[in-house]
Amino acid sequence: MEKLKEACAVFGLFNNDDFDAGQIAYQSLFAMQHRGQDGAGIAGAVQNEVVIHKDLGLVSEVFSDDSLRPFSNSRVLIGHARYATGGTSRSVIDTQPLVLHGLGGFMAMAHNGTIVNNQQLRMSLQKEGVLFHTNTDNETMMHLINHHSGSIEEKVAAMVKQVRGSYALALIIPGCLIGVRDPWGIRPLCLGKVGDSFMLASESCAFNAVGGQFIRDIEPGEIVVINGQGVHSYQTPPQGKGHFCVFEYVYFARNDSVLDSVSVYESRVRMGRLLSQVAPVDADIVAGVPESAVPAAYGYARESGIPYEQALMKNTYSGRTFITGGQKNREVSVRMKLTPIRKNVEGKRIVLVDDSIVRGTNSMYIVQMLRRAGAKEVHMRIASPPVQFPCHFGINTPSAQRLVGAHMGVDELCRMIGADSLAYLGLDDLINAVGNDKRGMCCACFNGKYPMEIPE
Amino acid sequence: MEKLKEACAVFGLFNNDDFDAGQIAYQSLFAMQHRGQDGAGIAGAVQNEVVIHKDLGLVSEVFSDDSLRPFSNSRVLIGHARYATGGTSRSVIDTQPLVLHGLGGFMAMAHNGTIVNNQQLRMSLQKEGVLFHTNTDNETMMHLINHHSGSIEEKVAAMVKQVRGSYALALIIPGCLIGVRDPWGIRPLCLGKVGDSFMLASESCAFNAVGGQFIRDIEPGEIVVINGQGVHSYQTPPQGKGHFCVFEYVYFARNDSVLDSVSVYESRVRMGRLLSQVAPVDADIVAGVPESAVPAAYGYARESGIPYEQALMKNTYSGRTFITGGQKNREVSVRMKLTPIRKNVEGKRIVLVDDSIVRGTNSMYIVQMLRRAGAKEVHMRIASPPVQFPCHFGINTPSAQRLVGAHMGVDELCRMIGADSLAYLGLDDLINAVGNDKRGMCCACFNGKYPMEIPE
Amino acid sequence: MEKLKEACAVFGLFNNDDFDAGQIAYQSLFAMQHRGQDGAGIAGAVQNEVVIHKDLGLVSEVFSDDSLRPFSNSRVLIGHARYATGGTSRSVIDTQPLVLHGLGGFMAMAHNGTIVNNQQLRMSLQKEGVLFHTNTDNETMMHLINHHSGSIEEKVAAMVKQVRGSYALALIIPGCLIGVRDPWGIRPLCLGKVGDSFMLASESCAFNAVGGQFIRDIEPGEIVVINGQGVHSYQTPPQGKGHFCVFEYVYFARNDSVLDSVSVYESRVRMGRLLSQVAPVDADIVAGVPESAVPAAYGYARESGIPYEQALMKNTYSGRTFITGGQKNREVSVRMKLTPIRKNVEGKRIVLVDDSIVRGTNSMYIVQMLRRAGAKEVHMRIASPPVQFPCHFGINTPSAQRLVGAHMGVDELCRMIGADSLAYLGLDDLINAVGNDKRGMCCACFNGKYPMEIPE
Amino acid sequence: MEKLKEACAVFGLFNNDDFDAGQIAYQSLFAMQHRGQDGAGIAGAVQNEVVIHKDLGLVSEVFSDDSLRPFSNSRVLIGHARYATGGTSRSVIDTQPLVLHGLGGFMAMAHNGTIVNNQQLRMSLQKEGVLFHTNTDNETMMHLINHHSGSIEEKVAAMVKQVRGSYALALIIPGCLIGVRDPWGIRPLCLGKVGDSFMLASESCAFNAVGGQFIRDIEPGEIVVINGQGVHSYQTPPQGKGHFCVFEYVYFARNDSVLDSVSVYESRVRMGRLLSQVAPVDADIVAGVPESAVPAAYGYARESGIPYEQALMKNTYSGRTFITGGQKNREVSVRMKLTPIRKNVEGKRIVLVDDSIVRGTNSMYIVQMLRRAGAKEVHMRIASPPVQFPCHFGINTPSAQRLVGAHMGVDELCRMIGADSLAYLGLDDLINAVGNDKRGMCCACFNGKYPMEIPE
Repeated sequence: MEKLKEACAVFGLFNNDDFDAGQIAYQSLFAMQHRGQDGAGIAGAVQNEVVIHKDLGLVSEVFSDDSLRPFSNSRVLIGHARYATGGTSRSVIDTQPLVLHGLGGFMAMAHNGTIVNNQQLRMSLQKEGVLFHTNTDNETMMHLINHHSGSIEEKVAAMVKQVRGSYALALIIPGCLIGVRDPWGIRPLCLGKVGDSFMLASESCAFNAVGGQFIRDIEPGEIVVINGQGVHSYQTPPQGKGHFCVFEYVYFARNDSVLDSVSVYESRVRMGRLLSQVAPVDADIVAGVPESAVPAAYGYARESGIPYEQALMKNTYSGRTFITGGQKNREVSVRMKLTPIRKNVEGKRIVLVDDSIVRGTNSMYIVQMLRRAGAKEVHMRIASPPVQFPCHFGINTPSAQRLVGAHMGVDELCRMIGADSLAYLGLDDLINAVGNDKRGMCCACFNGKYPMEIPE
Repeated sequence: MEKLKEACAVFGLFNNDDFDAGQIAYQSLFAMQHRGQDGAGIAGAVQNEVVIHKDLGLVSEVFSDDSLRPFSNSRVLIGHARYATGGTSRSVIDTQPLVLHGLGGFMAMAHNGTIVNNQQLRMSLQKEGVLFHTNTDNETMMHLINHHSGSIEEKVAAMVKQVRGSYALALIIPGCLIGVRDPWGIRPLCLGKVGDSFMLASESCAFNAVGGQFIRDIEPGEIVVINGQGVHSYQTPPQGKGHFCVFEYVYFARNDSVLDSVSVYESRVRMGRLLSQVAPVDADIVAGVPESAVPAAYGYARESGIPYEQALMKNTYSGRTFITGGQKNREVSVRMKLTPIRKNVEGKRIVLVDDSIVRGTNSMYIVQMLRRAGAKEVHMRIASPPVQFPCHFGINTPSAQRLVGAHMGVDELCRMIGADSLAYLGLDDLINAVGNDKRGMCCACFNGKYPMEIPE
Repeated sequence: MEKLKEACAVFGLFNNDDFDAGQIAYQSLFAMQHRGQDGAGIAGAVQNEVVIHKDLGLVSEVFSDDSLRPFSNSRVLIGHARYATGGTSRSVIDTQPLVLHGLGGFMAMAHNGTIVNNQQLRMSLQKEGVLFHTNTDNETMMHLINHHSGSIEEKVAAMVKQVRGSYALALIIPGCLIGVRDPWGIRPLCLGKVGDSFMLASESCAFNAVGGQFIRDIEPGEIVVINGQGVHSYQTPPQGKGHFCVFEYVYFARNDSVLDSVSVYESRVRMGRLLSQVAPVDADIVAGVPESAVPAAYGYARESGIPYEQALMKNTYSGRTFITGGQKNREVSVRMKLTPIRKNVEGKRIVLVDDSIVRGTNSMYIVQMLRRAGAKEVHMRIASPPVQFPCHFGINTPSAQRLVGAHMGVDELCRMIGADSLAYLGLDDLINAVGNDKRGMCCACFNGKYPMEIPE
Repeated sequence: MEKLKEACAVFGLFNNDDFDAGQIAYQSLFAMQHRGQDGAGIAGAVQNEVVIHKDLGLVSEVFSDDSLRPFSNSRVLIGHARYATGGTSRSVIDTQPLVLHGLGGFMAMAHNGTIVNNQQLRMSLQKEGVLFHTNTDNETMMHLINHHSGSIEEKVAAMVKQVRGSYALALIIPGCLIGVRDPWGIRPLCLGKVGDSFMLASESCAFNAVGGQFIRDIEPGEIVVINGQGVHSYQTPPQGKGHFCVFEYVYFARNDSVLDSVSVYESRVRMGRLLSQVAPVDADIVAGVPESAVPAAYGYARESGIPYEQALMKNTYSGRTFITGGQKNREVSVRMKLTPIRKNVEGKRIVLVDDSIVRGTNSMYIVQMLRRAGAKEVHMRIASPPVQFPCHFGINTPSAQRLVGAHMGVDELCRMIGADSLAYLGLDDLINAVGNDKRGMCCACFNGKYPMEIPE
């Protein structure tokens, strides 16, 4: 599918070993780079002071051995990889982590998600005399935490009561790492371990990248406080079973992550299996659009008995931004990322599995590409329902009028993209495929049922 | 396998349309980025003068819309993506294309390969009074061409007689694009078309990337001259059926390329099939080391009936160089590129297919990684024979003493990498798998039979 | 003299014309570059939003036509050139202007000076719940302004009452430019005009640079509010006649500036004249150390009748930082900035006039240099008294133990620097030379009489 | 005067001490930065190989401690600061030193000047089969040297016979530093010493900058070969007494340089004295346009008895390029470099001494500036005759039609620049002022008498 923009990865470390904390943070953020390519940052405590390094760009562009060195002996540290959900402002000032200095010393925070009542909270803080440095909703949360009193968990819990929206937070104050997940459990956050040190990360793939292990998910509404005495959990009231973002399974998360105890890879294989049951087709090969749709294609192939074959090749270097001829030419962009493996495609009837359709143009170019490479038939199978509603919780979906699934029926869309047939996976099947019984799901982008009221 | 360094991609364009020549070159080089990540350059004729832009770095780092603009209206143009085979010198001066100015105007050349008698030729040219600007063997070839007289094809043909080694060349002089492939046919070069314009490229994937088509391979010893009158072919005597580098099929070339009429992808599937026949094993899943070994793993799975499953995930952003903690830490480097998909691996007996083993350390780290992720057994299957001899034709293999296959038997190596079993594909099977009847193969890295004498 | 570090230049513009506000700010800051070479920034209102661009480096390095363009149509705008008085932290976060967002919209501020009770004020604000983003004292002042109510002049006046120290401020809020000078009048600030537009600047040379005119100095304790209705002045109680920094005349300010109605150039000529009266010497030529001591040398020459001659030449390119051989080699640094004009020096008895002596090492290297160039005698004449006390108001003097004038008598120092004789101008003479009857002077670096109590 | 562009500074070192050769070269080039601001480079022999570092930009931008380190132990080394006389091409390829590799090893060369028969020589070399990498005339000279046989001095001497034009060369081959000055002696080159090491430099100010000493000028047509046995001189036939560029004294050279035994500073004082005799005027002050005209103003003041006073202040940071509002606005450019010292100018009748007039626009803006600052009268006095002819020997004068002195009489020009009176120094007086009896002068820019024939 086209690249949707996710609002970030967060990372936290409480270093009980002699690890080079900066390197651990760097490797973890590198593993979560897919969640945000616009900026990156690390803030770590060094001798009761806080050191911060952040900039626009990829993790590998923002950091060097030189800029990581100051974090080497950091006891507590957080990191962030960012996509600017706000969109307009691409300034360093708005990158994260954000560091503020209050009476008790520094506080630094990294945030994944979106606060829907941010404007009201910000304005009421400004009425109380607060001056803001940034336009970010994490500055709002930091001021809220600071305006309460008590232990750090009490202050955070008081903030949780005021704030509505999605947030997975990693926070440091002197000697202490705190993780918070919103009561709806919309964005993921999990706890891991490497040696005797504890880590927080948006996705468990970050732990693998440093040779560490996944321990457990942070629960909706849970606050974990990690200090020299270990990990302490405080539970604020969750919103029912939670409302975990189903799109993390569909597209965002890496295949090797486990989210809320469900393997992303396995859930995608199941989506493909169910898709094969509800939308079978007579064909020669099944292929997936790299990379998130490949497991679904495996599932479709296994269920249908049609052999899986690689029809499209992804350019390894396209992770990095590249130019496409002055104007942003989507067709060139698609062609530079994906190319057909002609010998596998020529004369074939192809089931092409993709994870979702947003604007429809990418699908159109891909179908064209396969036809030019000699494909006899192209049957598009989408491992999720039509995206019809914008996300308000951290995913940068286009406005409804540009969501092709919102105003075009299956037949019309099939003609537009030039496929021989087109079918979606239904929402119930998708939920079954994920199979996360433990957790409720937010499927608002598919059904418009937002887990909370959205202000204008 | 570990990253071997290939000596480059070359590209050429004779623009008969209104194409933006710089963009075409950029997109083509981007598609061949895997052949050389150290530097890139484009040289194009603009109003009888030559414009050149080249620098160290990835194609996407070297070029911007601004630096491509001067090439827009270029009629003839060449490009290059480079790995410094020489190794020590990483200076801009040695990047390609190289431009020289003689009596007839400019000559610019891009080269993939290595000239084995370069030192003798260079010294005899210096004895004749030639001054060299670079340490490159393409400067030697350009001086040789210049020292002969006659038509451009006669001059190039005279150079071909003097030079021994591998070379795929793209050359421009005013109004003319020339392609040359050495008489042994060691490095690939093919001819393609987009609109009414002609292209030369090391791999056919470059044509796909610009919406163009593969026409045919350049033959060993062939010189093609492309000008306003079309494509003209001149054949110098080839060395038998040729000696095409078998390692292009094993590892270098992209899965979507067709080299000397053989699909790289299909040849790799066949390697896996044969590997399954000669080295079967009882297991739960077959997995491939991304990316070049994945088709071989498909082949192994299909032949054996054991289901294919993705065991390792490659980080999309690892195409770009990244830091690994000061010292070049191979283990961190492997972990940042590849991570196990734990749910697919846990408790499983795995056949892990890789394309080749060079130093053995990567395999060791990968096996460790799978074991830590819960693999019950790891059976390593290599889709080629042990690499035992250094390459002298453009591939930067380590010296023989660091080639683990040169001094370690299968059992010893199996213990070193910590696998439960290890097996290679034999050379005859590899050659059969490639199945390039049209062409002889250079298998010197496996059997030490170099297609020509190598000076000290 | 050695380079002391001054704490900054501030600039403000209320644009009543169609001027390109960014260019005006750039040219003005460029003219005041000598006051701060560590960083630069501009903040301007564009359609009720504020645009900010700032970075480490020289004005000419921080800005380009691209980065100035957004400010073109700015109605109100401020700028800053900075030296980090704090010294340790050289981060972008602490560069100015600082922008904060409160209930009434943005507030941006640029500051020259040092607040001596900053720590107390910061801590009491933190006790009230304020979170700080920076370590700067201008953030403290902005929070104080924000914590008061009333009109902008009332809020600023309330802040003025709380704050002790030196400050020349340029401040913008939507539709309004404000200038403030501390009640002691320590740092300079003046009002100018270009076309129908008003400007604030630390030094009047900024007005010349844009073709504008000096109007008047801002008075100690004065607040000027400039908006669509013109310039409005509000006077808070000054501290007696004021305590203007005498060192601005001695060294900092540019020769072409007029500070508190006194021409810097003329005051320096008078210092030289008086120096000649109190410390005459029989010599062949009088020479000045470029650039601030040259007018004093002119004065000495005119008064003594000894001809002025250029003995030292300053490298035009030394405005820019340059490397000096790994370790910070002061001798190399002096030699790269200043070289003797041998023909003017050989065999001569030289009166060498400098503005001040801080560490003494520069003087030592300069005397050596002149002797090697053949000078027969070198008589050092300093146009100010020995610097004996650190500055607490914005000038980065070294601590007392490194102030050579604090612990070395004239004879001892003369031997150390290797001169034939050494004499200073007395403090009374210096004050007479400045001749600023309108204003009291802060001469604390010479006499230790600080205009206010300095906390530990 | 407006900035004319000089064609370069050359530097050479034969290191007989333990000096850090890279630092010596850097400091020397920094001292000669005024001769060329477009690029810089150093080439040095390190263990029989040659290391080169060069780039576009100022000396202080091109080099860092890191890029200088490889040259530390260099025995022979050359450097270059460059202005691109050719003008159009601003590419790194054409920067100097140029390094070539022949039979005897490397040869590297740095060149100041212009070869007028370069095109013919280049073409005849191309006819012999030489391929050129650059468009520079120093590549031509290197090929000519290489095409001859014998000792290095014989080879260079043979080149000297073929080449016509201006050249001051510093050349290295393994173990040997060579300096060459053209037989006309147009561009300067001198020999110096620091410790036991020998240096070559365009201007003697380079020796001061490293604590070294001037030994002597290289004679017109002289070749000096410096190796482990010391300095050896070879004389090729000079062209009469030589034709030293008079404009070096008028404008280019630094005040602290001594060229062909004449102090630049003293010659400028004499120009001012003679100018006062031939063009006296009743006035209150004499002022000079910084920096090259200041000694001439001193001379005028001393001769006339009118006091010298500083009327214009030069911004220390203007050595560096700066932006001037999108379009190249000469007026803004002048204003950012020079500002009037109002108090010295107001109500005064000023004799303003400048070194030369090229286009006339700068003079116009300066006169305007002084009038706005209150000057009662401005009498322009030029310390040289009208520039009427283009230079063909390394100075980038505009074409004749833009040389205001070529087509405008004194009265007309006086009106154009808005002065109250205007007078030039005559050519005979200029030559007398320089007083270089030892050497003939090239005054072609003033009288059109070129020392050799200039091809079309």
